[in-house]
Amino acid sequence: MIESLIFANASQVVTCAGPARARRGSELGDAGVLADAAVAVEGDRIAAVGRLGDLRARFKSAREIDCRRGVLAPGLVDSHTHGIFGRPRYDEQELRAAGMDYMEIARRGGGIHASVRDLRQRDGDELFALAKPRLERLASFGTTTVEVKSGYGLTLDDELKTLRVIARLQRELPLRIVPTFLGAHEIPLEYRESAARRREYVDLVINEMIPAVASERLAKFADVFCETGVYTVDESRAILSAARNAGLLLKLHADELTSSGGAELAASLGAVSADHLAAISDVGIDALAHGSTVATLLPGTMLFLGKTKHAPARRLIEAGVPVALATDFNPGTSPTPNLPLVLTLGVSQLHLSVAEALLAATVNGAAAVGLADSVGQITEGFSADLALFDVQDVRAVPYWYGDNRCVATFVRGKPCHTSDLGIF
Amino acid sequence: MIESLIFANASQVVTCAGPARARRGSELGDAGVLADAAVAVEGDRIAAVGRLGDLRARFKSAREIDCRRGVLAPGLVDSHTHGIFGRPRYDEQELRAAGMDYMEIARRGGGIHASVRDLRQRDGDELFALAKPRLERLASFGTTTVEVKSGYGLTLDDELKTLRVIARLQRELPLRIVPTFLGAHEIPLEYRESAARRREYVDLVINEMIPAVASERLAKFADVFCETGVYTVDESRAILSAARNAGLLLKLHADELTSSGGAELAASLGAVSADHLAAISDVGIDALAHGSTVATLLPGTMLFLGKTKHAPARRLIEAGVPVALATDFNPGTSPTPNLPLVLTLGVSQLHLSVAEALLAATVNGAAAVGLADSVGQITEGFSADLALFDVQDVRAVPYWYGDNRCVATFVRGKPCHTSDLGIF
Repeated sequence: MIESLIFANASQVVTCAGPARARRGSELGDAGVLADAAVAVEGDRIAAVGRLGDLRARFKSAREIDCRRGVLAPGLVDSHTHGIFGRPRYDEQELRAAGMDYMEIARRGGGIHASVRDLRQRDGDELFALAKPRLERLASFGTTTVEVKSGYGLTLDDELKTLRVIARLQRELPLRIVPTFLGAHEIPLEYRESAARRREYVDLVINEMIPAVASERLAKFADVFCETGVYTVDESRAILSAARNAGLLLKLHADELTSSGGAELAASLGAVSADHLAAISDVGIDALAHGSTVATLLPGTMLFLGKTKHAPARRLIEAGVPVALATDFNPGTSPTPNLPLVLTLGVSQLHLSVAEALLAATVNGAAAVGLADSVGQITEGFSADLALFDVQDVRAVPYWYGDNRCVATFVRGKPCHTSDLGIF
Repeated sequence: MIESLIFANASQVVTCAGPARARRGSELGDAGVLADAAVAVEGDRIAAVGRLGDLRARFKSAREIDCRRGVLAPGLVDSHTHGIFGRPRYDEQELRAAGMDYMEIARRGGGIHASVRDLRQRDGDELFALAKPRLERLASFGTTTVEVKSGYGLTLDDELKTLRVIARLQRELPLRIVPTFLGAHEIPLEYRESAARRREYVDLVINEMIPAVASERLAKFADVFCETGVYTVDESRAILSAARNAGLLLKLHADELTSSGGAELAASLGAVSADHLAAISDVGIDALAHGSTVATLLPGTMLFLGKTKHAPARRLIEAGVPVALATDFNPGTSPTPNLPLVLTLGVSQLHLSVAEALLAATVNGAAAVGLADSVGQITEGFSADLALFDVQDVRAVPYWYGDNRCVATFVRGKPCHTSDLGIF
């Protein structure tokens, strides 16, 4: 028998219901804020949104969950993380404060290279044990879907090891996890002595890694770090084209620090998302506006790097580009588990309205991970992925910045995270 | 009989011990990081810092508290908050995102005026009930001492009402609370029709409010918002001089948005702290360098306001000025309870080292509230105000930004906040 639940007594139900892409909203109501609604769940699906009395009459055997005047929202979607890593990179935080640039740290063998050296020395069990509590912390802030990339292995075996850890996390955690293959996260140090060696690594990604990842069905997406000093546009195109041919959907780290044509490439390949975009050009904005790629913005990264430049979120939205917000959770440039804080940054640094920030971390985040039809909305038929916050007004979530007001999440109708074990 | 405690099994004890002003540190060790130390407490005081075996031999009847390989630090000192207010100002968050400036919002009767209208309508019990859980949230992030200002009353009765709420919080919460009278937070709307009316309000602050506050011993400090469009330097000087004569110590909101000579005034009056300083001039830095005033920096406020300009923290430190970091917790421009996040901003936005950021929220924060001799350090004879974080390296506290890694705090040797009731 399928279990039925009714989420009752919320002060607001924020549905985010509606078309799943290019959602924007100058008014809070554009996020679908209902003051007197309850939500019925049957099994793993949302069965109805309506008045409590009506739902009680319709779902007679349902168990009621008292939302205690809190805000019930779609579980948040964190569509860009690098959640599998070994040691935190505390040292680089100090180096940057002392004035050393991110790319200079990388040139000295730090940055991604430091995490690569570290991850290669650890086995899958160790990586699983490190990643599990980290992803649970992300969940504790209201996130129910998280995209997780590989990319600190950069050998066939180490990339597969990472993706198998992600697969194990998918099986063992209630959190919904979307795996991405990012073998082209950096040019490994051992492939840097010549252009020929560099080409060898690109060939390794294309001819060995992608086929292995695809045949083991270890990733839904492939991604490349396209940036001056990392992968060129041509290399990125070659890798993503191979990934697409192997049946993977595409993402691209594009125009983070310099404008190198990444957004244009993402649009031309029909990538599901182009991510970062702090340095996107006018041509890049235009390319995204004429395609269907989601712009995933990561203002926490710019904050943690101490940069004042941010992605032109308003211009993207005004051009009709769907904007998602994500943490970029990673050990070097954005070690935050707090997606609501990224919503705050969306409002304060990127000038989104609260409704736009909410849509960016729900329906548009879902679109950025290819799940627009099943998560990110409180809509009949969608997965019962929900987050409950102990505030009476959804605007409070980005407002009390740096706090955690999430008290419970549900994924597929089952409890995922609860901060207050007395509640349910 | 006095109870003795030994805090055992910390992976690090961060003492921040040493002279209480102008503390800086380019190395983590400058914050006093001990890898193999325990801390003994007798009654409300720190009795000793040393090896566990030695402390066990010396304090035979002590109860041991297992720090579980966490980091034990001085309880954090949040030396600048406006913690007594009514409704949160969600609406202004949206107005700013849409491009309206902070001072423009104030000119339209929003900003501080909105909180004044709101607070005047509430009685003390209501304000107490609102403030208590808010201050408890600050405590949950590791804060054990919090300065709390009045300033949303702006009538004699409403300022006294606010300060009595603070006094009740002092009595009823374990948190250490330092009260500040800020009757000169704004020119009330009803005193704005003429220069004469404006002068009447300044006279009211000087001739009625300050004497009443002093005679009822409701505040340790007096503060003024000295800023273009708010109080002039001359008005600020008159008010603070009267406060000093009445026995109050001085603080000043100085040079937040424009450079108006606030820092110079604070130094010339021997103020204990000058706060904000994002627009401090070279002359102002020089004045602070030749005085004894603590520079309290509030980078969270600049973040939440969406401004990219920050106080010149490095130049202040290099000039020998003691720098403190605080949340500025308030309903309009900085609604964060998360002081560790402000440490992150100290590193990422102000270019402090981690040691400097820690000292800024412990010993220098204590100096900013006139408690440098009793709190902010794990030093024999200091108050047993402690914070325990569930990380193995103190650098993790500002690193995992937006998270809350504090699991317990103690004030005067007694539990103040615990996140995990199973621990103690």
